[in-house]
Amino acid sequence: MSHHTYKKIEITGSSELGSDDAINNAINTASKTVKNMDWFEVIETRGHIANGGVKHWQVTIKVGFRLEG
Amino acid sequence: MSHHTYKKIEITGSSELGSDDAINNAINTASKTVKNMDWFEVIETRGHIANGGVKHWQVTIKVGFRLEG
Amino acid sequence: MSHHTYKKIEITGSSELGSDDAINNAINTASKTVKNMDWFEVIETRGHIANGGVKHWQVTIKVGFRLEG
Amino acid sequence: MSHHTYKKIEITGSSELGSDDAINNAINTASKTVKNMDWFEVIETRGHIANGGVKHWQVTIKVGFRLEG
Amino acid sequence: MSHHTYKKIEITGSSELGSDDAINNAINTASKTVKNMDWFEVIETRGHIANGGVKHWQVTIKVGFRLEG
Amino acid sequence: MSHHTYKKIEITGSSELGSDDAINNAINTASKTVKNMDWFEVIETRGHIANGGVKHWQVTIKVGFRLEG
Amino acid sequence: MSHHTYKKIEITGSSELGSDDAINNAINTASKTVKNMDWFEVIETRGHIANGGVKHWQVTIKVGFRLEG
Amino acid sequence: MSHHTYKKIEITGSSELGSDDAINNAINTASKTVKNMDWFEVIETRGHIANGGVKHWQVTIKVGFRLEG
Amino acid sequence: MSHHTYKKIEITGSSELGSDDAINNAINTASKTVKNMDWFEVIETRGHIANGGVKHWQVTIKVGFRLEG
Amino acid sequence: MSHHTYKKIEITGSSELGSDDAINNAINTASKTVKNMDWFEVIETRGHIANGGVKHWQVTIKVGFRLEG
Amino acid sequence: MSHHTYKKIEITGSSELGSDDAINNAINTASKTVKNMDWFEVIETRGHIANGGVKHWQVTIKVGFRLEG
Amino acid sequence: MSHHTYKKIEITGSSELGSDDAINNAINTASKTVKNMDWFEVIETRGHIANGGVKHWQVTIKVGFRLEG
Repeated sequence: MSHHTYKKIEITGSSELGSDDAINNAINTASKTVKNMDWFEVIETRGHIANGGVKHWQVTIKVGFRLEG
Repeated sequence: MSHHTYKKIEITGSSELGSDDAINNAINTASKTVKNMDWFEVIETRGHIANGGVKHWQVTIKVGFRLEG
Repeated sequence: MSHHTYKKIEITGSSELGSDDAINNAINTASKTVKNMDWFEVIETRGHIANGGVKHWQVTIKVGFRLEG
Repeated sequence: MSHHTYKKIEITGSSELGSDDAINNAINTASKTVKNMDWFEVIETRGHIANGGVKHWQVTIKVGFRLEG
Repeated sequence: MSHHTYKKIEITGSSELGSDDAINNAINTASKTVKNMDWFEVIETRGHIANGGVKHWQVTIKVGFRLEG
Repeated sequence: MSHHTYKKIEITGSSELGSDDAINNAINTASKTVKNMDWFEVIETRGHIANGGVKHWQVTIKVGFRLEG
Repeated sequence: MSHHTYKKIEITGSSELGSDDAINNAINTASKTVKNMDWFEVIETRGHIANGGVKHWQVTIKVGFRLEG
Repeated sequence: MSHHTYKKIEITGSSELGSDDAINNAINTASKTVKNMDWFEVIETRGHIANGGVKHWQVTIKVGFRLEG
Repeated sequence: MSHHTYKKIEITGSSELGSDDAINNAINTASKTVKNMDWFEVIETRGHIANGGVKHWQVTIKVGFRLEG
Repeated sequence: MSHHTYKKIEITGSSELGSDDAINNAINTASKTVKNMDWFEVIETRGHIANGGVKHWQVTIKVGFRLEG
Repeated sequence: MSHHTYKKIEITGSSELGSDDAINNAINTASKTVKNMDWFEVIETRGHIANGGVKHWQVTIKVGFRLEG
Repeated sequence: MSHHTYKKIEITGSSELGSDDAINNAINTASKTVKNMDWFEVIETRGHIANGGVKHWQVTIKVGFRLEG
């Protein structure tokens, strides 16, 4: 239980629906190649604008996952 | 009207639904013991991951409330 | 295509519905006087509290738009 | 009452008297062209030195004002 | 003398006179319920605007006080 | 399991032995009055100097504890 | 000489040549509509990548100019 | 077009010629193993000194590239 | 000697002994899969609390290693 | 006129009167040994508390002065 | 007792033993030429890696000392 | 080889040619009085504007040099 080591990677997800959905999309894509993902932290929220509103959301998160050691 | 003094406390709420709901949960729990809450500021958004998605959201906020002086 | 110059302005939108909606409201109001808006970045999320919950959300964003040069 | 949108601008005022006076001078000059100014936030305090003391103070503030929408 | 433990709280004071006075007001109000206050650090200076000048100042400070242990 | 709310407080511990010991002292003192302490984050490490070395260490941490709610 | 008030705006310039040139392009475009520009501060340097190198540079600066009061 | 996910990595390039060239060197080396690189952001500029001048420049950047999902 | 390119990764190590030991554990685990590690920078120190003291330390570091180019 | 080089030093002044006076005291003391002081920037404002008010103010500033080259 | 002025210098110490020892080494070296050193603040902790562990620690601190005025 | 102690000073150089040249000028001037300069880190890039372009560049760096102990 002691001595776990984690690695953090930084990924940016996008969505046309909202900021929470962009986070879920980023995690979902990463889960296809990264195992043991444990937590995330939001780094930056931004997006593109069209027709007087948000066209799509882009949220950058750090994801921590356990290294198998 | 002048001379109001406010105190800020830092609390972390959680939710399985989304980041906004985690904030509402934090405020709702705090309201049971803190009076005169006036405003909040988001400090950090993070959460835990399970099954390739967000399992629950954790949002840390500062809450300002008026001290009765 | 080279040499585009952008200006960023800082605006704060509000909503009773949620943080994403406050951003859309800010962009919608700004679009009435600002042309060529291209992207936004969230600077700060805060709000007012009433009755043990969020009364309205206030989100400050920077909006970038292309200067016609 | 909902849906107010605010814009923030960044201005630097100066004074030979002190840091608070530099803020008042900045706001006073801005009020000649900007309506509906509501609040300010101090960003940076600096100044020039002469004869072993402060010659004049320069304080940079952000000023928020309501956009008429 | 060794092993003192301090707690820091964050409070916001206000004044119509100036930024230093807002700090003194915050400390004065807090002193009615908090003992052993030792030092403060300024976190943020802001305020409201009316009639082309500062209407009242709001200064947020952290105050450190010794825990009796 | 969902909906836990945490509060964070900021405390400063000291020690003549080292920076880690100052953290343990801070937590030990706080544990006499605060229940359910769960995690800490280091905010600042400083100290006083005497005779060409560190006389005592002062480490400021944030401590998170679960609100019973 | 006392009481000058300055406004700062935030602009992003681009160039295919380098980061310094992107700054000059931003200032040159802004100078067509803004008078009395006095100084700039670099906020962020970024750019787009193509063919294993920088395709064009994007530098965001703040520009201060004197308000005629 | 929606749902693109990007990963950011942090790399440090060096050059004897200048800061822009150090960025190009970093991107060029990374392009040998990383596909779909899209943009970069400068994080830190530093370097070593010899003979009263800069001996070589070291610039740390974040590089974003599209994950194939 | 010129043109070395480095990559930085972010890892979190843990230890029951102390903050320095958590750093050594993180580096030791990473060294099993990463070659040419050259330096580290501490990003964050935190940990879990039990029985009025630190149960285990968690230190997040960035590690720089030379890319073979 | 080109090629001026400046050095910045960091000093902390104190005063029983107010924050502006602490800055003037710092500059006045430094002027006894440092020539060509040109500008200052406020880094931190803090102070000690006694009897429910500010006992003395401590303001840390950076002071820039021209190196004679 | 009022009006003390302090100067802060920034120094980096190193040690093969640990981060606390690097701080003590920095202070010990500085004490040979600087009088009246009063306190320190940790700015950055980093180090070099060899053989899967920390080879030596490098800690940058600010040291405050009283100017004799 | 162990126990080296370094001091960092903060200097601002200027140039009419570009940002890299301003850094070289700062280092060159400092090298006339400071020995054993080893590395630099860029803190801030700014400059003055004239005639719709950069008149001269001002870059503030920290320079680290080995203390002879």
